[in-house]
Amino acid sequence: MKKMTLASVLAVAGLGLGAHSYANEGMWQPHQLPQLKKELKRMGLKIPVKQISTLTDFPMNAIISLGGCTASFVSPEGLAVTNHHCAYGSIQYNSSADNNLLANGFLAKTKDAELKAAPGSRIYITESLDNVTDKVLGDLSAELNGSERYQAIEDKEKAMVAECEKDEGYRCEIYSFHGGLEYYLIKQLAVRDVRLVYAPAASIGKFGGDTDNWMWPRHTGDWAFYRAYVGKDGKPADYSKDNVPYKPKSHLKVSGKGVKDGDFIMAAGYPGRTNRYRTSDEVVNNFTWAYPTAKGYREQYIDVIKSVAPAGSDARIKYESTIAGLANYAKNYGSMIKSFNKGDMLERKKSLESNLQKWIDADASRKDQYGAAIAELQRLIKEGQEGQEHDLLYAYIKRTNMIPAAQRLLRLAHEKQKADAKREPGYQDRDMTRFTQRMERIDRRYDANVDAAVLLHFLEKYAALPKDQRIPAMDKAFGLGDGFNSENVAAVLKDMHKKTTLGDKKSRLDWMNKSVADFESSNDPFIQLAVALYDHEMAEEKKEKARIGELQQARPAYMAAIIAYNESLNKPIYADANSSLRVTFGKVKGYSPQDGLVAKPFTTLEGLVAKYVKGDAEFDSPQKQLDAIAKKDYGRYKQKWMNSVPVNFLGTLDITGGNSGSPTLNGRAELVGLLFDGVYESIIGDWDYDDNLNRSISVDSRYMLWVMEKVDGANNLIEEMDVVY
Amino acid sequence: MKKMTLASVLAVAGLGLGAHSYANEGMWQPHQLPQLKKELKRMGLKIPVKQISTLTDFPMNAIISLGGCTASFVSPEGLAVTNHHCAYGSIQYNSSADNNLLANGFLAKTKDAELKAAPGSRIYITESLDNVTDKVLGDLSAELNGSERYQAIEDKEKAMVAECEKDEGYRCEIYSFHGGLEYYLIKQLAVRDVRLVYAPAASIGKFGGDTDNWMWPRHTGDWAFYRAYVGKDGKPADYSKDNVPYKPKSHLKVSGKGVKDGDFIMAAGYPGRTNRYRTSDEVVNNFTWAYPTAKGYREQYIDVIKSVAPAGSDARIKYESTIAGLANYAKNYGSMIKSFNKGDMLERKKSLESNLQKWIDADASRKDQYGAAIAELQRLIKEGQEGQEHDLLYAYIKRTNMIPAAQRLLRLAHEKQKADAKREPGYQDRDMTRFTQRMERIDRRYDANVDAAVLLHFLEKYAALPKDQRIPAMDKAFGLGDGFNSENVAAVLKDMHKKTTLGDKKSRLDWMNKSVADFESSNDPFIQLAVALYDHEMAEEKKEKARIGELQQARPAYMAAIIAYNESLNKPIYADANSSLRVTFGKVKGYSPQDGLVAKPFTTLEGLVAKYVKGDAEFDSPQKQLDAIAKKDYGRYKQKWMNSVPVNFLGTLDITGGNSGSPTLNGRAELVGLLFDGVYESIIGDWDYDDNLNRSISVDSRYMLWVMEKVDGANNLIEEMDVVY
Repeated sequence: MKKMTLASVLAVAGLGLGAHSYANEGMWQPHQLPQLKKELKRMGLKIPVKQISTLTDFPMNAIISLGGCTASFVSPEGLAVTNHHCAYGSIQYNSSADNNLLANGFLAKTKDAELKAAPGSRIYITESLDNVTDKVLGDLSAELNGSERYQAIEDKEKAMVAECEKDEGYRCEIYSFHGGLEYYLIKQLAVRDVRLVYAPAASIGKFGGDTDNWMWPRHTGDWAFYRAYVGKDGKPADYSKDNVPYKPKSHLKVSGKGVKDGDFIMAAGYPGRTNRYRTSDEVVNNFTWAYPTAKGYREQYIDVIKSVAPAGSDARIKYESTIAGLANYAKNYGSMIKSFNKGDMLERKKSLESNLQKWIDADASRKDQYGAAIAELQRLIKEGQEGQEHDLLYAYIKRTNMIPAAQRLLRLAHEKQKADAKREPGYQDRDMTRFTQRMERIDRRYDANVDAAVLLHFLEKYAALPKDQRIPAMDKAFGLGDGFNSENVAAVLKDMHKKTTLGDKKSRLDWMNKSVADFESSNDPFIQLAVALYDHEMAEEKKEKARIGELQQARPAYMAAIIAYNESLNKPIYADANSSLRVTFGKVKGYSPQDGLVAKPFTTLEGLVAKYVKGDAEFDSPQKQLDAIAKKDYGRYKQKWMNSVPVNFLGTLDITGGNSGSPTLNGRAELVGLLFDGVYESIIGDWDYDDNLNRSISVDSRYMLWVMEKVDGANNLIEEMDVVY
Repeated sequence: MKKMTLASVLAVAGLGLGAHSYANEGMWQPHQLPQLKKELKRMGLKIPVKQISTLTDFPMNAIISLGGCTASFVSPEGLAVTNHHCAYGSIQYNSSADNNLLANGFLAKTKDAELKAAPGSRIYITESLDNVTDKVLGDLSAELNGSERYQAIEDKEKAMVAECEKDEGYRCEIYSFHGGLEYYLIKQLAVRDVRLVYAPAASIGKFGGDTDNWMWPRHTGDWAFYRAYVGKDGKPADYSKDNVPYKPKSHLKVSGKGVKDGDFIMAAGYPGRTNRYRTSDEVVNNFTWAYPTAKGYREQYIDVIKSVAPAGSDARIKYESTIAGLANYAKNYGSMIKSFNKGDMLERKKSLESNLQKWIDADASRKDQYGAAIAELQRLIKEGQEGQEHDLLYAYIKRTNMIPAAQRLLRLAHEKQKADAKREPGYQDRDMTRFTQRMERIDRRYDANVDAAVLLHFLEKYAALPKDQRIPAMDKAFGLGDGFNSENVAAVLKDMHKKTTLGDKKSRLDWMNKSVADFESSNDPFIQLAVALYDHEMAEEKKEKARIGELQQARPAYMAAIIAYNESLNKPIYADANSSLRVTFGKVKGYSPQDGLVAKPFTTLEGLVAKYVKGDAEFDSPQKQLDAIAKKDYGRYKQKWMNSVPVNFLGTLDITGGNSGSPTLNGRAELVGLLFDGVYESIIGDWDYDDNLNRSISVDSRYMLWVMEKVDGANNLIEEMDVVY
């Protein structure tokens, strides 16, 4: 399920393959939907297409963002439903050894009993979306070089965001589409008094654990409920007893009837990032170099942690979530490499590129318009791959704790010398709450020995790079010469970790208020290293920004060619995911993961019991649930055709990280489930949608309602929602 | 696939659960089949039941044994087909670095080119079967104690076997059914000039390797062809150029048409051992103690080997097959434990036992006849479980090389003091070829350091047993006192392995001809240990034989009760497997291994390609096969409904180890496949047949013929066989 929480992904950015029925494939912007009217009606959409094409109308205005996850309003009183794994931090935050809400679950029977969500929790309600392409690009001179272009775009974006955020309680963001062909300003009400209302026990909400993650068959009850609160004036406010529930403009009805095999479904949400329009060069580089290398680095990272921090040790406990994160994406990359090797994505991509090129070459004006841009894009891509061995290694060196902490703190001191509006994103006043939280969080995830051992491992690889790919300041700090003396470097690291005060939370927070001079005169070894690396970092950043500036010119031109080419074929094109609101359509449908094997679209309560292992960390179950199943106490949720209650179901929805918690809707826009994962064979879906293998996994609304009624006694919420049977 | 080669299993021996349709469940003796006439006709048997009820008629007289595997004649010229894994030893035996038949496959285009099978290879052709129960049990006094009874039965069996084997070229064996309720003398022609005719490359014959072992979906081409040769007089003879192909009384036709989902199938073969009629006490003991403990021992054994013999080392190469064998049954036990914990076998068994008891108690004469026997059986079972911790540990200590070699050699010296007929089975003249081969084979599987390390591991566990479960001679040999001094014991072992000459083949073979006095005066430390342990071993064997003698009285009485009870319900009862010829019936049928997942009954050539990994040890494929698939050169074997050629298929046949190579037959007794494995969920099938989960895996005759025609060019064999389309 972690797949679908928006995680940081390799910052790389296509050519849509389009070999598929476009109705299953596609993360559409609502305003594009009228183009799909005929197809959507044919598939089973029962409400007018116009209704789902406007952000500010039902049902789109009930779809909200948690920043990384999606949720939806399900009552007029601001009740919102999302995934258990999206509310995990808030459940954990309210848990103690004596009152373990994760283990036991939590239900507020009245509003008074609702709990403050974890610090920083937000509900973002999209209120407007404006095409600001002209404002961003309108007066940009074609003469600007890459750096200038990058800076000019960033300055305009910042100015528009600042202007928009003058409206207090709002968060504004510029979203770039098609690699910079279009820009939209999205304005969201940022509710900051968020409360936890209900979460089932982890043995329901996280049933299957890491073992079942990305897998089918699945039996996970991945839901939780929040409520949005605002001040009496209806505006976002900090937590206060006096706050009142937010009244959403609309809310979804929840279906107690659910769906069956072949039914039309759709989902709206905030998918994070896809790479559907990358060039074949980019595909080859990622699948034959970047993913395999990164997978190796992740596995090595885990091995190092495990060798230094034995199971059960305090250090190991601190690193369990790091290990889980590393392993999760090692598995993810492994699946993608496997799918790539078995599939024909590259062949199809190449053939589409060649068709595109023929189409361009067939017409002089097209050649004029697109020819140079494509060549330029290819050049930039090649250029970006130069030195990537160094870049990836350096990125993993900075996945430790002390080096990036020192670097970020130093950067903050530098940025603070500028006016807020001029600062780098991430270092503005609006970012300081998150910055502070990040600095605080290190305490729970850091052990000096592990940090040193991981650095030692990656520094050895770094030392093996050709001299011209190395950073002199780094070589100097660790005494790296031609060979690699492991003992010496280990001694240097030991000393550095011993001397640094950055392991201490208070010290890190103190450094947030110090000047560049303070840093430069510090004798903290990691601060010194950050200072020594600073010029290099800035030079690299400048080069990267220049390249991005150039890409911001080349990629839109390429995308314009793709769009024009597809228009000539009468095919609408959706943009790659970029965390903005998208809608996807499909069907409830099983698939064949392998020759000789068929995944059926629904799982059952009996299947849950078959997986149950008493007391197991991943496959335990509340006794009450087991008893209800044993008694076949299925109530109105029993489906005669399966003689059970459906737990999870498969669909063809086109989703990715960020879609977690998205409501799965039927043709009348009633909530029939919550998206929470995709199947193993669809992990490569971020690059290539395959009708035969791309399957989304939703938790079934009937299972949710059954647990709420028969296991958790959440009748107050069932009553509050509009449940339709 | 190893499951189905008859492997040594825990020597334990039931109450049939009978909750299932008896047609799918059951390993029937041919003479029982008339009882099933109606059901078999209903299921789809097209030939008269009478025909499959006689061992000496077609098709039963075409079903032959390889000793541990099954084969069948498929031409009038003695051509026999079995599994690749059953002929593996012979393929390996004829392979060299320069001419790797395992890797490349082998095809004799003419009879001259056929190769000698591995030494000891035999083809056993069943010629007669006589019920000798009266001869064995007829004049046995009820007054005999356990030891006497055991000995009396063994003496009679040996006498009958010796008498029968006076007919030169025959192998005779007494088979006990229902734990000793019935005895049959089976006389088999023992063909000893066996030649390898054809085997596909291991990348077809063993495709999927250990990863796919016991798994579905499956794409293994598990077949190979032998030919039986006899002297010009038609009698078995040692290998000679002058020998001629054996002319079987009948042979099977091979179907080029094959089967489809739901079709009737049957198989005849030599299943090794099942435990379907064990009592609930035996079930509990095995699934909650014996299997979990043995699984742990196997995993530890593997860990020790791996820690002493790193991957790639010479020692490791010697132990790869030991590791594979240990891992194979650790996986097997793991599956059974899992199935047991999930299933309701124990509940059903208990309820059947209680029904049986009620039926007995309802009638005074039944109480008289069966009452005491059941109580006695239960007592004996409990008694047999006493000291089992010691017994299992000692059994694993004897799974090393030096200790059992010394013990067997010493035993041979003792046995040789008796007349041949009086010797213990395994030490008679008729056993000497196999004995010698076993002694020779140690060379390829023994490394002193590994042997010592494994002994050290298990001796530490042994030393932790209570004093009264330890063997004084063992304690003395290894200096085991109250604690366990690992260094001391390691030093003792090191010294023993250094001094012993049993690591040398010639030395072992020499010891086969020495006297007990030679052993007693030897200073070889392992010989000394064997001598020191001898009296203990003999005392234990005597106790065990007495117990078996008692069981030979109690178990038949219990089985008689079960049979009578089932007769009262009009239900025929099949005997547990005992390596004698059995027939099983069923259908081509998929299953659901898990909620939400369906295994389809057939796999395809395209699925094979999807698994293919170039150069992989388990998933490689001959290029010629890949090319033929890429060209869709499917010829007459293409099935329109799947647009491919079927590779493997699932069925409900009730099989176990020993059935490997059994022909899967259609209703006309035409060969439509070869059995080679069961699915993971049916491993517990040795204890409990479950209609929903017990599935056999056959390689499809259409895939065999397609490979023979399109990949291996074995047209000479296709022409020799009766292929029907």
